[in-house]
Amino acid sequence: MVAPELLQIAQQARAAAQKLVTLDTLAKNQALAAITEALQTQQAAILQANQTDMERSEQEELPMALLQRLKLSPDKLASNIQGVRDVMNLPDPVGQRQLHRELDAGLILERVTCPLGVLGVIFEARPEAVIQITALALKSGNAVILKGGQEATHSCQVLVQAIHRGLQGTAIPPTAVQLLTTRAEIQQLLELDQYVNLLIPRGSNAFVRYIQDHSRIPVLGHADGLCHLYIDQQVDIPQAMALAVDSKTQYPAACNAIETLLVHQAIAPEFLPPCAAALVAQGVKLRGDEATQKIIPVAPASEADWGTEYLDLVLAIKIVDSLETAITHINTYGSGHTEAIATTDAQAAAQFVAQVDAAGVYHNCSTRFADGFRYGFGAEVGISTQRLPPRGPVGLEGLVTYKYRLWGNGQVVATYSGDQAKSFAHRDLPL
Amino acid sequence: MVAPELLQIAQQARAAAQKLVTLDTLAKNQALAAITEALQTQQAAILQANQTDMERSEQEELPMALLQRLKLSPDKLASNIQGVRDVMNLPDPVGQRQLHRELDAGLILERVTCPLGVLGVIFEARPEAVIQITALALKSGNAVILKGGQEATHSCQVLVQAIHRGLQGTAIPPTAVQLLTTRAEIQQLLELDQYVNLLIPRGSNAFVRYIQDHSRIPVLGHADGLCHLYIDQQVDIPQAMALAVDSKTQYPAACNAIETLLVHQAIAPEFLPPCAAALVAQGVKLRGDEATQKIIPVAPASEADWGTEYLDLVLAIKIVDSLETAITHINTYGSGHTEAIATTDAQAAAQFVAQVDAAGVYHNCSTRFADGFRYGFGAEVGISTQRLPPRGPVGLEGLVTYKYRLWGNGQVVATYSGDQAKSFAHRDLPL
Repeated sequence: MVAPELLQIAQQARAAAQKLVTLDTLAKNQALAAITEALQTQQAAILQANQTDMERSEQEELPMALLQRLKLSPDKLASNIQGVRDVMNLPDPVGQRQLHRELDAGLILERVTCPLGVLGVIFEARPEAVIQITALALKSGNAVILKGGQEATHSCQVLVQAIHRGLQGTAIPPTAVQLLTTRAEIQQLLELDQYVNLLIPRGSNAFVRYIQDHSRIPVLGHADGLCHLYIDQQVDIPQAMALAVDSKTQYPAACNAIETLLVHQAIAPEFLPPCAAALVAQGVKLRGDEATQKIIPVAPASEADWGTEYLDLVLAIKIVDSLETAITHINTYGSGHTEAIATTDAQAAAQFVAQVDAAGVYHNCSTRFADGFRYGFGAEVGISTQRLPPRGPVGLEGLVTYKYRLWGNGQVVATYSGDQAKSFAHRDLPL
Repeated sequence: MVAPELLQIAQQARAAAQKLVTLDTLAKNQALAAITEALQTQQAAILQANQTDMERSEQEELPMALLQRLKLSPDKLASNIQGVRDVMNLPDPVGQRQLHRELDAGLILERVTCPLGVLGVIFEARPEAVIQITALALKSGNAVILKGGQEATHSCQVLVQAIHRGLQGTAIPPTAVQLLTTRAEIQQLLELDQYVNLLIPRGSNAFVRYIQDHSRIPVLGHADGLCHLYIDQQVDIPQAMALAVDSKTQYPAACNAIETLLVHQAIAPEFLPPCAAALVAQGVKLRGDEATQKIIPVAPASEADWGTEYLDLVLAIKIVDSLETAITHINTYGSGHTEAIATTDAQAAAQFVAQVDAAGVYHNCSTRFADGFRYGFGAEVGISTQRLPPRGPVGLEGLVTYKYRLWGNGQVVATYSGDQAKSFAHRDLPL
């Protein structure tokens, strides 16, 4: 049962979305500029609200990692305001013509990108997510309902107040940005499939999976990041070692860090000792299957290890007898995020890239490149591990859909049916 | 609980999909050609099996409409074999490069279309769906698990046997095409989210919705087709009448036929009498709101009518006071399928096309154009009314996804991080 206040919020957001869908790029960028000014003007109030959240969270002895994410410094705020300006400079994802075809004289078909409508975004501690998400949502012509972590309530409220103040007098109604503040509202948000068109949960794997399983609303996000690096029998050993170290240690808590290293049995005796040494030097704790244990000193890996996302300086190692076995292992245990092969054998690389089923398949480079900014998307909404598009790092284009427009001057289908049926021209026009 | 036999079928299909993903266009087309030959060779056995299904269905006194759909004539079979040749001539949806970018020297990012994997297709009486779906699935590099209607069991079995015989000796393993024959297997198919990547239900609205609500597997399809034609105050009356007649009567059982006619109050007294006469002359039964009842003789329409897909020669009429009211009505009651405006006012058309939320928004043409063949897609998998892509008529491109491929020569992310971070080039290359 959805509370009347929440229903009203959803209806306001939908009405605002209806307005947003008509705005051009200039109008949306002017509104974003007004938001940056309001955020700058309200900087003191924002930092003070964040201080209130910090004090309460410290009293409640929340974990240090969470306190660090909660903390909004003047630098962090400034960098996020700059982030809004960066989004202004990105190409408008709305209004892109993807198809342009003359079906017959005077009957013109177009496929044009358009906003999704209303986004529901649920995030944890980081209050600056309010700024980032609002910028991405509005640039893509969508209204947004935000739900931040309980510990960031004051920060989020003051940030949204500043955003509302900024939007006053612009073409975007302030009702386009809505904030939920109680945990009970999350469950109700999941039921608003008449009003909310896409859910973007940002949080733990279990949280994302819960959202996916408890709403009819489509969900953009990834539940897991269980990535592998496979070392083929023909390999440049120093290069492959560097890839293993970077993929594991450059930022082990990231979803695109590897959890399992697969090594071809023919190269394992030569490769594993120096590679293990390099990894251990970076603080990595190694686990290995029986074959690995015969080559290097490692803790034993069990079946459970192949399906575990450590998100930490732990790496499981398995020796495989062939490229095919490696591919099967990855397609069985991988989460479809990012998978890499290190090899000098072009044919092995081609087979790996074709047969491994993941959003990203890499040859001779670190899995850590799986990221919207590194791909040149300018901004990242999230990384999707679902099979259907959008897949992989998703930029602004993940926040739009398309519609077909057909422009005629009285054409009816009867003309193109039956014995005397007129033929279609189906002539593609310049985009 | 999935039966062991079904699990084996799913595993065989997945293994076949793993093989299919490596095949080029020529290999797939050769296999399709072999299927056409086998179907031709087995024509007598196919027609005989269909005769068996027909006799049993006649004994069971199944409805005439269903018997007509079940009946496989030599002409129907020949036309479906020709349909396989048509699919051979369509461009291969796999291997299309959508993005090609140099992230840095020697680090090349591609986004390339690839098969989805295994399709689960559930259809009703028409046995020739086996032929059509198999051709589309294999051309797009997917394995397929088919479940036909109970009444078509013999026809489907002999068709699949012929397809298997055709695939012998081709690059596509016969296990790529699997047939389920019992109703109990449908429920189990919905649980195979580890093996099946897309469900395509073809049947009633209620059936499609049931599938959507009872599986974690993505579903391609539309639950409803509740379409509108809105007659604006500035309109070419004869043209608008022709659009109303075609949109309603050209094939009333189609999902893209209109169910409600919205008319601006300023034009209603002039428009409705001749338009009603033209519709009634085609056998259409009219229902109208109170304002309509004052202008023409119609049965009263109730609130329930605005949400009813008649799929029959029945049309509800409502008079609205403005373009905005029409848009709100459509966005409230429409199913997001296809919506049209008849007007000579370009600004009204632009507003309608921007603000109406549907897969297709049309100006001065019949809603009946919403169809993959009419759009020039060559083949149609179905029409999707969901908000996210794929939306509208879906061709072969709805049966593929994409993956990102990143080709390097040892690049690590550490190089592009920290104080000494190297910049990315992000230079787009020719597609």
